[in-house]
Formats: sequence, C-alpha cells, structure tokens
Amino acid sequence: MLEQSPLLTREKVLRDPIHDYIYVQHQVILDLINTKEFQRLRRIKQLGTTSLTFHGAEHSRFTHSVGVYEITRRICDNFQRNYPTKEAGDGLWDDSEKLVALCAALLHDIGHGPYSHTFEHIFKTDHEAITAQILTDPSTEINQVLAGVSTDFPAKVASVIQKKYPNPQVVQLISSQIDADRMDYLLRDSYYTGTNYGTFDLTRILRVMRPYKGGIAFDINGMHAVEDYIVSRFQMYVQVYFHPISRSMEVILSHLLHRAKYLYENNRLGLEDSPKLLIPLFENDFSLDDYLQLDDGVLTTYFTEWRQNTDTILSDLAVRFLDRKPFKSIKFDANTADLLPDLERLIESAGFNPEYYTAENDSYDLPYDAYDPTKDKPRTQIELAQEDGSLVELSSVSDLVASITGKVSGDRRFFFPRELLKSEDDLFVDIYNQFRTYINNDNLIHPKEITQHDN
Amino acid sequence: MLEQSPLLTREKVLRDPIHDYIYVQHQVILDLINTKEFQRLRRIKQLGTTSLTFHGAEHSRFTHSVGVYEITRRICDNFQRNYPTKEAGDGLWDDSEKLVALCAALLHDIGHGPYSHTFEHIFKTDHEAITAQILTDPSTEINQVLAGVSTDFPAKVASVIQKKYPNPQVVQLISSQIDADRMDYLLRDSYYTGTNYGTFDLTRILRVMRPYKGGIAFDINGMHAVEDYIVSRFQMYVQVYFHPISRSMEVILSHLLHRAKYLYENNRLGLEDSPKLLIPLFENDFSLDDYLQLDDGVLTTYFTEWRQNTDTILSDLAVRFLDRKPFKSIKFDANTADLLPDLERLIESAGFNPEYYTAENDSYDLPYDAYDPTKDKPRTQIELAQEDGSLVELSSVSDLVASITGKVSGDRRFFFPRELLKSEDDLFVDIYNQFRTYINNDNLIHPKEITQHDN
Amino acid sequence: MLEQSPLLTREKVLRDPIHDYIYVQHQVILDLINTKEFQRLRRIKQLGTTSLTFHGAEHSRFTHSVGVYEITRRICDNFQRNYPTKEAGDGLWDDSEKLVALCAALLHDIGHGPYSHTFEHIFKTDHEAITAQILTDPSTEINQVLAGVSTDFPAKVASVIQKKYPNPQVVQLISSQIDADRMDYLLRDSYYTGTNYGTFDLTRILRVMRPYKGGIAFDINGMHAVEDYIVSRFQMYVQVYFHPISRSMEVILSHLLHRAKYLYENNRLGLEDSPKLLIPLFENDFSLDDYLQLDDGVLTTYFTEWRQNTDTILSDLAVRFLDRKPFKSIKFDANTADLLPDLERLIESAGFNPEYYTAENDSYDLPYDAYDPTKDKPRTQIELAQEDGSLVELSSVSDLVASITGKVSGDRRFFFPRELLKSEDDLFVDIYNQFRTYINNDNLIHPKEITQHDN
Amino acid sequence: MLEQSPLLTREKVLRDPIHDYIYVQHQVILDLINTKEFQRLRRIKQLGTTSLTFHGAEHSRFTHSVGVYEITRRICDNFQRNYPTKEAGDGLWDDSEKLVALCAALLHDIGHGPYSHTFEHIFKTDHEAITAQILTDPSTEINQVLAGVSTDFPAKVASVIQKKYPNPQVVQLISSQIDADRMDYLLRDSYYTGTNYGTFDLTRILRVMRPYKGGIAFDINGMHAVEDYIVSRFQMYVQVYFHPISRSMEVILSHLLHRAKYLYENNRLGLEDSPKLLIPLFENDFSLDDYLQLDDGVLTTYFTEWRQNTDTILSDLAVRFLDRKPFKSIKFDANTADLLPDLERLIESAGFNPEYYTAENDSYDLPYDAYDPTKDKPRTQIELAQEDGSLVELSSVSDLVASITGKVSGDRRFFFPRELLKSEDDLFVDIYNQFRTYINNDNLIHPKEITQHDN
Repeated sequence: MLEQSPLLTREKVLRDPIHDYIYVQHQVILDLINTKEFQRLRRIKQLGTTSLTFHGAEHSRFTHSVGVYEITRRICDNFQRNYPTKEAGDGLWDDSEKLVALCAALLHDIGHGPYSHTFEHIFKTDHEAITAQILTDPSTEINQVLAGVSTDFPAKVASVIQKKYPNPQVVQLISSQIDADRMDYLLRDSYYTGTNYGTFDLTRILRVMRPYKGGIAFDINGMHAVEDYIVSRFQMYVQVYFHPISRSMEVILSHLLHRAKYLYENNRLGLEDSPKLLIPLFENDFSLDDYLQLDDGVLTTYFTEWRQNTDTILSDLAVRFLDRKPFKSIKFDANTADLLPDLERLIESAGFNPEYYTAENDSYDLPYDAYDPTKDKPRTQIELAQEDGSLVELSSVSDLVASITGKVSGDRRFFFPRELLKSEDDLFVDIYNQFRTYINNDNLIHPKEITQHDN
Repeated sequence: MLEQSPLLTREKVLRDPIHDYIYVQHQVILDLINTKEFQRLRRIKQLGTTSLTFHGAEHSRFTHSVGVYEITRRICDNFQRNYPTKEAGDGLWDDSEKLVALCAALLHDIGHGPYSHTFEHIFKTDHEAITAQILTDPSTEINQVLAGVSTDFPAKVASVIQKKYPNPQVVQLISSQIDADRMDYLLRDSYYTGTNYGTFDLTRILRVMRPYKGGIAFDINGMHAVEDYIVSRFQMYVQVYFHPISRSMEVILSHLLHRAKYLYENNRLGLEDSPKLLIPLFENDFSLDDYLQLDDGVLTTYFTEWRQNTDTILSDLAVRFLDRKPFKSIKFDANTADLLPDLERLIESAGFNPEYYTAENDSYDLPYDAYDPTKDKPRTQIELAQEDGSLVELSSVSDLVASITGKVSGDRRFFFPRELLKSEDDLFVDIYNQFRTYINNDNLIHPKEITQHDN
Repeated sequence: MLEQSPLLTREKVLRDPIHDYIYVQHQVILDLINTKEFQRLRRIKQLGTTSLTFHGAEHSRFTHSVGVYEITRRICDNFQRNYPTKEAGDGLWDDSEKLVALCAALLHDIGHGPYSHTFEHIFKTDHEAITAQILTDPSTEINQVLAGVSTDFPAKVASVIQKKYPNPQVVQLISSQIDADRMDYLLRDSYYTGTNYGTFDLTRILRVMRPYKGGIAFDINGMHAVEDYIVSRFQMYVQVYFHPISRSMEVILSHLLHRAKYLYENNRLGLEDSPKLLIPLFENDFSLDDYLQLDDGVLTTYFTEWRQNTDTILSDLAVRFLDRKPFKSIKFDANTADLLPDLERLIESAGFNPEYYTAENDSYDLPYDAYDPTKDKPRTQIELAQEDGSLVELSSVSDLVASITGKVSGDRRFFFPRELLKSEDDLFVDIYNQFRTYINNDNLIHPKEITQHDN
Repeated sequence: MLEQSPLLTREKVLRDPIHDYIYVQHQVILDLINTKEFQRLRRIKQLGTTSLTFHGAEHSRFTHSVGVYEITRRICDNFQRNYPTKEAGDGLWDDSEKLVALCAALLHDIGHGPYSHTFEHIFKTDHEAITAQILTDPSTEINQVLAGVSTDFPAKVASVIQKKYPNPQVVQLISSQIDADRMDYLLRDSYYTGTNYGTFDLTRILRVMRPYKGGIAFDINGMHAVEDYIVSRFQMYVQVYFHPISRSMEVILSHLLHRAKYLYENNRLGLEDSPKLLIPLFENDFSLDDYLQLDDGVLTTYFTEWRQNTDTILSDLAVRFLDRKPFKSIKFDANTADLLPDLERLIESAGFNPEYYTAENDSYDLPYDAYDPTKDKPRTQIELAQEDGSLVELSSVSDLVASITGKVSGDRRFFFPRELLKSEDDLFVDIYNQFRTYINNDNLIHPKEITQHDN
C-alpha cells in the first residue's frame, strides 16, 4: 500500500545552522513537528551533561531530530532522481517508501527523557520502548497525525525505528553504521561544541550513497569520504562524548537521583520538597503522559528546591550538580582495580560516604560503533560498490578503518570528590597526602610505582 | 589603587564556537565563573522566545557572558601592546584598569532572570539593579570573590556596569554603541540562529580600536568595517530580534504569567499548582536569593503543572506556550489603530477573552541603537581617528550609517489567536470571514481599501 | 523551438569551494567546459591586480564562470519545481529556456582578455564584442559545441548575453542588478580575499526569487536578504574593488603597456624583446585566434623579458609591476584638482616623466550599480512581490538601499612614485619636503590648509 | 650572538583567508616580502597541476610562504609567553632565536621553480640547493636584506632550512613531521580545493606545543588533536595530492618538456619558437638569475607558441596540456606489470608513440610522511609530554596513527591516451576492443580474469 500525505502548497523551511534550511514539504511532517510530544524535545538537551564541559553545546533533541529528517529527505530525493526502481525486486529505490522513512527519521528520538542514560539507569525506563509507545498509543498527538495517513502507518513507522521493517534500505537510512542519525549528530555536535573533530564531507557521502538489494552501499570512489566519517566519529567519541568532566557530572546526577529516590522511599524527602512531576517515577507507577511531562527543566527545578533539603547528602549533591562542581577522576585498569577499596577507605576517612561520593565509570558503556560481523549482534557492515557493481566491505580496503574495527575504545575511570586533592592544611591533610601517592599522570598506580625520569 | 589578581600558573581555556577559545588567565576570573550565580546563567537562554522561531538559537547567557569577557580581554591586550600609557592624562591605556574591565565584562548580565523582558514587565523587577546588588551584596559568592581583590573592588566593577566609572575607556569597552557586549551577541546569535546577518569583521574592528582621552575611537581606515558592523546590527534587529513569531510567543508568556498572578492574588490558582519558587515574586516580597533560584526551567516546570489547571485560560495559555502555538499578527499604524476595537470585538464574539488573547506590541520597545546626540539620553557617538589624530563622527562620513541614524525601526503589530483565520465551516464562520476583510498583505486595513491589481 | 542536449548518464561534479559542487548534467555543458576557449579562462585572473593587495585572491575567470553556471542551474531547478508555466503568457517559468540560460551563464565572460580593463583601454578591444564573436564564429570550439544543439543556438546564447533575448526572465538571470554573475563574484571574491564583506544569504535569495511576466521578482518577506546583498555589494566595491593599491598597480600596468606600444611603433622595442604574441595587438591587426592566445602569463613573460630592456622607462615599469612596487596616491576633488600641475612639476623635477609616473584615476570608472530609473541607461529595478502578487520597488521600502541609490561611490586619486615621500637626505630633498606640504590625511590640500587641532 | 631587526613602528598586516591576518612586526620581514625573489612566488602555483583537478586551488607559493611565517610567529609568541628560558640549557625557548626562525619559515620555499617536481626531473635542478643559493649569494635582494641583520645571518637562515642549525627547536618548527610548513599547506590546500579533508584544530595544536631540550613536544592531552592532524594529512595525500588526473597532467607536462628539449638539442625546435627564457635550461648552462626569470606563465607562454609547431608530438602535447585533455590511467601492481608491454604495443598500433603517450607513475614518489624511526633517514618522531614531563611517542598511544605508520601509501598507475577507450567505429576499433579487455574496476587485469557476479 502506498502511503501518501498531501504536499504543502508551498514548502515551508526552518532555518538551521547545520543544513542551512530544513525543507518541509508534506503536511504530515509539519503536523508532527507541531505536536506537543515533539515540541517537548526542545526542552531536552541533546548532549546532557556535555554542555557542562563544552559550554556551547546547549542544543536540544528538537534540533537534532529535524536535522535527521532533513538528511533523510536529501537522500530520498537523490535516490529518486538517480536510482528509481523500474520493477519490483531490482534493488533500486521505491519512492513510495519516502514518507515512512521521513517520519521514522523525524521521530526516532521521540521517546527520550531528560539526561537519558542516567535517568533510564535510575528509573528503569527504556526510551526505545517509549518511542514505540508514543507512535502507537492512540492518546498521543503523534499517533493521531500518523494514523491520518493510514491506520497501519503508526505501526509501520515504529517498525522502521525498531529495525523490523521489511525494506532494508529504509531501515539502514535511519539505523546503520552510517545513517542519517549519526551524520546529523556528528556535524551538529561539532558545530555546537566548537570543535571540528566531527566534520566530514556530508555532500560527498550523500552523493556516493546508493540503494542495492541488501540495503545501502557507497560508490568505491567515495571510500575516503566514508573513511573520514568513521574517523571523525571515533574522534568525537574520544574527544567529546567520553570527556571525563561530563561523565563526572553524570555520576553526580546519578547519585543525586538515587539519593532522592532513597529518601522518598524512606519518607525522608520532606513535604516541602515533594517533586510533584517525579513522584510517579519514584513510585515506579507512571503513565505515558506522566513520562511526557518530564524535561531537563523539571529535574533542575527540583534540584533547586533540594538545595535547602535537610538531608546533607541530597543538598550537597544538588549544589554540586547545579553549580557545576565536578568530581575528579583517574584512569584504572585490571592491574590497579584492586586498589580502589584503598581509595574508598581514604575517601570515607575524609568524611565522604563512598556510595554517593565515588563511582567507577567506563566509557565502554557508551559503545563505540566499530564494525564487527563476528559479534553477537552483528552490525550491518558498510559496503562499497565497485565500478562493475560488486561489493567490498570497508575495513578490507581501508587501513585506517581496520585499525579501529572491532576494538572497544574509551577508558575506565574512578571518580572522587576534588576535596581529596586539596593541599591546604586541614584535619585531613594526612589522608590527602596518602591519597595522592596513588595518582600519576592521570592514572591510578601502585604507590611504589612512581619512577624517576628526567626531562 | 592598582587591583591585582594572581595569574594562574598556566592559563585555562574554554572551548567556544565563536572565539575558538576563551582564555582565562586570572584566578579571580576563574573563581567568578565557578560561582553559583554565574553557573545559573547556563539555565537562562540568551534569546528567550527567539529559539521558538530560530530553533538553533538555544544558547544561554553563560556562553554570551564568557564571550564578552574574551573580546574585552583581546581589546585590553591590544591596547597594552600598542597604546600603553606613558604618563597620566596622555589618553593612552592604563593596564591597571584591565582587571576591573574584565570583571565588568564577565558580569554585565549577571542579574538577568528568565525571559527577562517579559518577566520584568510582570514582576516589576530590574535586572540592572539586581546586577549591582549581586556584585555588592556580601551574601553572594560573586561579591566574595570580588572582595578578595580589594574591599572597594565590587563597587568599582558595579560602577563600570552602571556607566559611572571615571575612566570612559573602561566604560565604553562594556557599554557603547560598539562594545564587547554587542560584538559578542551579534556574532553569537548569528552563529546559533544559522543566519549570517550579524557577521562582521571582528578581527579588523579590534585592530582599528584605540584609546583616546574621551574613550575609544577607531582608525579611519577601518571605517567600512565599523559601518558593516552597524548595518549587521540593524539587520539582526529587523530579521531576527523583531521576528513576529518570537514576539507572539512573548505575548503568550506575558499573558500566562499575568493570568497566574491574577489567579494567585485571587486565591484561585489551586493548592496543587502552588509554584513554590515563584510565590515570593507573586507576593512581591522576594529576597535576592529568591530571585536567584529562578531560571527558564523553573518557569516551564510550573507551566507544565498548569496544563491541567482548572482555569481554562491559564491551562490554554500554558499549552500554547509549551507546545508552541503562536498567535498570528498583522501590522498596524496610526491610520488603522482605530480599527483595533473592531477586531477585539470580533475576537470576543469568537469566544476569546481579548485581555488574554490579543495584544498590541511594537518592536520599538526593543530599541534600535541608532546614534543620535540630540536625544534625551545621548549615546556616546562613534568616533573615527584620522591620520593626524583628529576625530570625525561616523555618520558624517558614511551614507549607509547616516541613512539609519536616529530613526526608530521596527513595526507595530496586533496579535490574535490563529483560530480567527480558520476557514472551516463552524459556528463562527461569519466572524472569521468578517475578520479577514481587515487584513491585506500582512497589514491591518480599512475593509474597503483592497484594490485590484493584476500581476 | 525547444533546444535539448542529451543528459549525461550520470551527472558529473566539479568540486568548488563556494558552491561545494558544480553539477553538470548536460553533455553540452561538459563539452563547453572542455573547449580550448573555456580552458583558457584558467589562465586569466578574475580580479587582475587585486591579488597584489589581497594575496589570497588569485582565482581565475574559470572558477567564476562555472560558479555563475551553478547558481543559474539552481535557480532554474527551483523555478521548474515551484513555478512551472501552465500556459503561454502566464508569466511562469518555461523549462525549455533552461539550456540557453545555462550556456549563457557559463559563457558570459568568455571574451575577457588578461587584465581586461587596462588591456582594453590600451588596445581598444571590447570583451563583449569578442564574447559574441567567440559564440558565433564557426572557427571556435565553443561555436561548434553550441551549433550541435541547433543551428541558431549560438546566436540565441549570444543574444542572452547581449540582453536582446526576448524572454526577460532569462536575460535577468544573467544580467540584472541581482543576477547569477554578481552573486557568484561577491561570494567568490569574499572567500578568496579572506574578507567577509561580500557574504550574503544566497540560499535565502534563491528561495525568494520567482519569475513574473516582466522578469524576476523577490518575495517581500525576503526583502532584508536582498537589502543585505545590495549592502554587501557596496561594501565589496569600496573595500576591495576600489582599493588604492590595486588601482596603483593597474596604473603601472597601463603605463607599461602604453610605453611598450610606443616603443614598438617607433621601432625602439628591440629585436631581442619582440613580444611575438602581442605584436598583432601592437599592429592593431589581430584575428580572434591571435586574441585567444593571450593570457596573464603571456603578459608577465614579456614583462620579464623587458626587465632588461635598454629603455629605462620600460624596464623600470616592468620591474615595478613584477616586483610589486606600487605608486602612492592621494585623494583629490574639484577643489584641489588645480593643484595637480604643481605636483606634476615637482615630480618631473625629481626626475620622473609625469606621462609614465603619474596618473589620475577615479573609481567611478568601475561603476557602482546603484539602482536609478532616471538614468540614460535605466537599470532593471529590483521588484518585490507582496502577498497578493503586487510589486514594490526595493528602495521604496528599504532605507538602507535608498541611501545608496543613484549615488556614485568611490574616490578620485592622484598617483605618483613612492620615492616622492622619501625622507632621506638626497639631491631632491627640498622637492620631497615641498611635495609633502600638499598632503594631509590621505588628501591633496592647499599647502596653507593644515589646521591645528589637539587630540 | 643575538640577531635583531628593528620593529616596525606599527605592525603591518596582510589579509589572509586561512589565518585572517598575517602580522608583520619586523622591518626585515617586510623587506624580504618586498624582494623580487619573493614576489616571484606569486607567479608559481602552490599545487601545480592539481588546480586542473580541483579548479579552486589556484593559489601561489607566495600565499603559502606568508602562512608558514605566520604560524611560526604564533608558535614563537606562545613559547615566549609560556616557556621562556631562564638559563642556558634548560630546554625552554630562547626568544633571540625568533628572527632566524621567522626568516627561515618565510623563505623555506624560495627556490621553487614552476611545476617543481616535473621541472626538476627534466632539467636536473634542485630547489633546495637553489634556496640555499638565493639566501647566500650576494647578488640577490634576499641576501642583501638578510645580510643587513648580520654578516652571518644569511648562512644561519640557510642552515635552518637545511636542518643543520644547532638548535633543534628552530629546525623542527620548520621541518618535522608536524611543522609550520605542513600545517599551513594542509589548511590552505583544503580551503582552496574546497575539500575539508585537511582541516584540523590548529589553535589547539599550537596550544599544546612546547619546547624541550630535544626539540618540540606536545602535551599529551592534545594527543587526539595531533592524531587528527596526522589523519588529515594522510587523507589529503590520498584524496587530493595523489589524484590520478593531476598526475596525468604532470605526465603530459613532463613529456612535453622532454620533447622540447629533445627537439632543441637536435635543432628541430624552430627559430620562431625559440623559448628565450628557457634556453639556458635547455643548454644546461644557467645562472641563478636565469632560473629566477622562470615562472608558470613563462612555461605556458612557450607552450602556447608551440601549439603551432611543426613537430606534431610537441604541438599535440602542448594542446593537451593547455586545453586540459588528460590521459586516462589504470592501477597495476607486481602481478600485472608484465602486461604493460602488451598495452604499449596496442597503443603504438593505434598510432601513438609510447615514449610520449604512455607513462608509469607511482604516487610513492610523492612520499607520504608516515613516521618510521627504522628508516635510513629516520624522521624526527612526534613526542607527547605527560603530566610529569616524561615523553611518549605518538604511535605508541594512538591506534589510528599506528595503523598508517611506516606504510607507504598511494598506487602505481599506467597512463595512456583517452582515445584508446573510444567506442566509435574507426580504423582502430579492434585495437580499442582488445585494449579494454585489460581493464576492470580501474585495474589492469589479465584479460581472462574478469569474473561474473550479480548485484
């Protein structure tokens, strides 16, 4: 069945710093943008605590979502112009797939909550399940708009996002190792952080993309542009997304929510500080509508109220989060992990409850998408199409990509209050001195390990 | 007296999309950035409702404030390198003024609240007075850091921001027709909106700036760069800052806060919806600390709570604001203002309370800074220094600048619910049809005025 | 008759710094680019002596020509997508005009010689006439490619460039106050000089362009973008194109060619220095093929040979041009023009032949395109289309544009050897001292005029 | 001895698209730029035939040279501000080295001729030796300016460029794996080609550079910025510098000069076509002054004259070069090299002299600078300084860099006239058909090798 949505009499545009303009041509796209569920994305930062490290990166999930839509739109237009299907099964592009692709692109992040990773961890929510629910639950404005196209359209769009849609081209546009989602966030996050690690040649990549039976491939003469994209992505991870300060602020956020939940469950949060909109989450009994009330501002508003809470751990953590007082951290590995209890003991001696004032965090949790077909959940590999149409896999022709293929990346860090690095003479000065013997060149070490060298 | 602050052993940098890096060299600057009052600026958008028109412009007052600091730092460095004073009164740059200039630059917006213009209008607050209070009240962390330099340093910094400081060079760095504040926001707002109207040649302008006895002048060979800056500023006002959609959202915000205040004062807001952090403002009895709890998120959190309020005007306006459902608007002028009551009557007939569903708004309220020495509050004019040292005023040598000098700019608009433009057949269809006869080419007209033309 | 050219099986692209890619879709466009006449444009700088002031601006007429083509292509695509004609005379876009528009855009500068303005002045050539000749003379590769479309196609393309083509939309795409030619050179010259005065919002302008019966108009909501373009153009003229150093180098070039021609005509150029490829020009008896042999390198090669010429004026001017030793200059006007003979006399006393070592040059010769319908050759005015389709003229709604409408811009300068400003004590020191009394603040003055002022 | 040059009373600036401004502060730098030898660099393209592939890249060696100077200046300023030497041998920066470093940076390419690589190959010139000669020969303006600093200053500057200067910091600023030369050309060539492969974070790299006893190191927290630079450099080589079309045009240029030399030596070049300025090179008896007369325009002027030469090989190759008619090419390797004689035989049968119409060219000749200390000429490795001052080598901590370390990169190609790929039916159609059986997917293959596959 061919889904259609009326075209606007004249296309509308949204000004965008990354793509110059976002072109909206279908009434349904405009209507989706105007739903309350989509507008809510304006109040959720794309990068969570990263803006506390890179102050420019305060952009919201709204901007990213319209960007993913726009890249998808450009790809579909290119496919239709250059690779239109002539007969079923010829592996070329069927333009009746465009609308489902555009809607899936626009809505792929609709289920995200504030500070997603941390929030999900504490409250056991799942943004992917919620995305599907928002699309298919008749109570949402999103669902009502989608259902206006056809009764099974909401489920279809959801199935693209869930990678269950039968046409692999549509699925790979939205979810693959080089998809519209990743392309937009690399460029956007680069732009807003003011770094340039994430830049790559979008125009050239869009130009060399082409549909084939199994999904989407890239002309081999665009190999280096794809390679450059992979390297840029790697660089953004290690330089921006894995930044220790942002992770430190996430640690504080996590401990803060954890403490609040604990106090609530033990009736110690205080009536004054009743966080109305969070209570359904604390109760672990929340509706979709409850969930959709939440945004970054709701959390920080309650944190502001908690600054004066009588529980000193809660109020102290709220202050650390709102006033940006990150924990410090050091790297550790299998060889030094056994020293962590020593450190926790020292930290406790200095007056900090280790449960709320220390953390281990590895950036492997934010998985790096290196390609590896041998994994349990093998990723769709990136295929390059040669002149004669045959395909070769990217890492087989690129040394650069091969070097980072299948390898996890990132580091493991131990977080602790910066007070431990104080040098002032106070009650705990001996503890501080002892603590510092465990640290060298940003690494946890066995205290005896420090070696001499001359510069 | 020469204020000094220890230099950091190594300068720190903040990554910034506009200036690449912000260089922090003094301990006091680092300490000011780390205060709770300054960190709060991260939670207040620089452009308020403008991000609802230009979705990329979600940057905060924090990013702008460090940008103004950075431009000021570069100017001071240039002055010290090229125009150091040799003897008192020679009109050259005295580098002992640097620290007060840098602190004033960093802190010039510290007193802003959320959605400042609207907020101040409803709650009769004054961000300039609050700025001075934050600097000079011993309860603030800002004051404590400044007082560490010298006991009268907080007052000195405040006097720069209040334009009362004796050295006009320092004052004009922060407040004049071409100052570090304006230069940063034009570039920054351009970058984040994704328009390029606000770009100008910052490097060249910094290069041609020079101190003189009366303040700051510009080498005449940089005249066209200054001209370009003035034109860019004009363009940003008419294209971005005065955008009807943003003003429409401000109108809704204003009506919403106004309604909430009214309900509160009449005990009709509902216990459930007690907006704890706003109550001191509703009571018109708030401390500096109360004020400093507020940010954009606090407002939108209460708006979220009000979505379900039993007062339908409050809940409807909250929905319109959160879900971005702007009013429509048309231009009017002295010749058509007499028609506004007609329109209000029609709007009321269609079921909308005109007090909360219409507004007149002119963008002259957001004054355009054209130069005019004949005004009551004459602005410091822009002086160009010729080869032999004599000064000429900018508009006397630039036709472009002369063309916009002393003229107000902007338009007057009447705002109304978009429902009035509905074409569907419903109860009010006659009202809608009548309403539309008052509108032509975005202007309010006398209904008979429409003339024929062929294209 | 509908001209057609086969489409390439797959479009080809040229990488371009301004437009990212130039998209070539027709075989005839590819063939035109590959002609010898078009490739020759690679060896002629777009901005002549401007690269001696702005060293980055070394780009050729080739890059500009493909850029004009690309902008035209985008406009045609937009017109076809949004404003396709439905019946003859409806004022909308007839896509069968596309090919002639594209060819005219690509070839509009094909007749330019090296350092056009100066060259034409000395040798009485006319690049517009030569352009027409290149298109219509069967000896050229350009003509052969065009004639492959249809026998009258070469003449048609020529008539577009000559503004005689019946469809005003096609003519205005290439030649009007806001056409593809101007739009490309402003952006390109800005980029290569490294200034940003010429930037404007190309995407937005392309978006608001629309065909109408009388040519091309712009949606009124894009008024400020058009205004910004006009101001940018003005800025580029006064800041870049009229730069005194570039004009000074043109003066030297002109005197150098003039001297060579004079020596040639008087048999004093020397056999050794016979400038083979220039002789037909010196003889004023040259074929189209002779003309097409010339490029920037041919001129500088002969200048290099002339460095050693026995005529000291010729060799000195060659050295000044090749080694970039510009004359100095001052502004003068009607009030001071009577002093120029005094200066020339002083210059002659210092040992310089005024015919070859001085010049008057006004930048009005490089006309600024302000709009003025009252002129002898009225320009096509810029029309803005209102919501209801009626048109208003740009300067009637833009104060900024009105301020520069109909006014000439630029200055008149007198050029002289920089030696006259020497301060060293040599034979001519009295002359130098006397000379300097005529100069103040970059202006020619009556020696008594200097007034005192304090700074 | 401490070399000094008077500072200009006010620094001069050159506008530059890459660095915004080039700041000239010393009289000697200004004087060097104004020499005839330096101005000649304006007439030699930085990238030779690359502009025939990437049309935007028409920039000259002049722009690059001032860019290298500017980067060096910034590094020196940073070193002086942050790492000034306190006592001899402390491994910190001695600012009396600044002037020699700046001059070496500015002049490092002064000896280049037109289309250097090809030119040197044909005429056995050596631009490095000529650079040294220009610096030290009293006949040059460059030498005279340098000698004005001190008598041994010219030799000192030359020794920096020749890597013989005792202070390794100064040498490494100009010549190492990450030096001012490479940093400027990557950014500049990226900008002018309009690709973005060569971009990297210059500001950050300059920030993390620091002097140490053995030369220049980088703070370890800047590791990823250095890594990004290395990858960018790799990308520029494979995507831009090794482009087959540019190499094809070099092949034609080489054959053309070779043919001209051959004809000259056999008195067959023709009196009419006597290339006056090239004759000393043909005679292999040229002075420094002869060499310095040459530039790109001199070569193309003679090529233009040769278009009509009676030798058909010479005239045909001149046409192919001037009108940009590149040879085609295919990759080959050790397994297929034995087939090349077959191809040459076919090409000869089709009427082309293989000596002038075919070539083998591998891009290994344009060496890729991967780091490898085991090589005969070991490169200075890139050292990263850890927090405690100890150094680690880059590839030991970067997987990405390790993956391209010590590996040659590029390909081997066989070039032939595009006529061989004609499909038209003419005399040689059988030859063409046979020729094509050797080609598959841009590779030379054994004709039987083609395998079937379906897409």
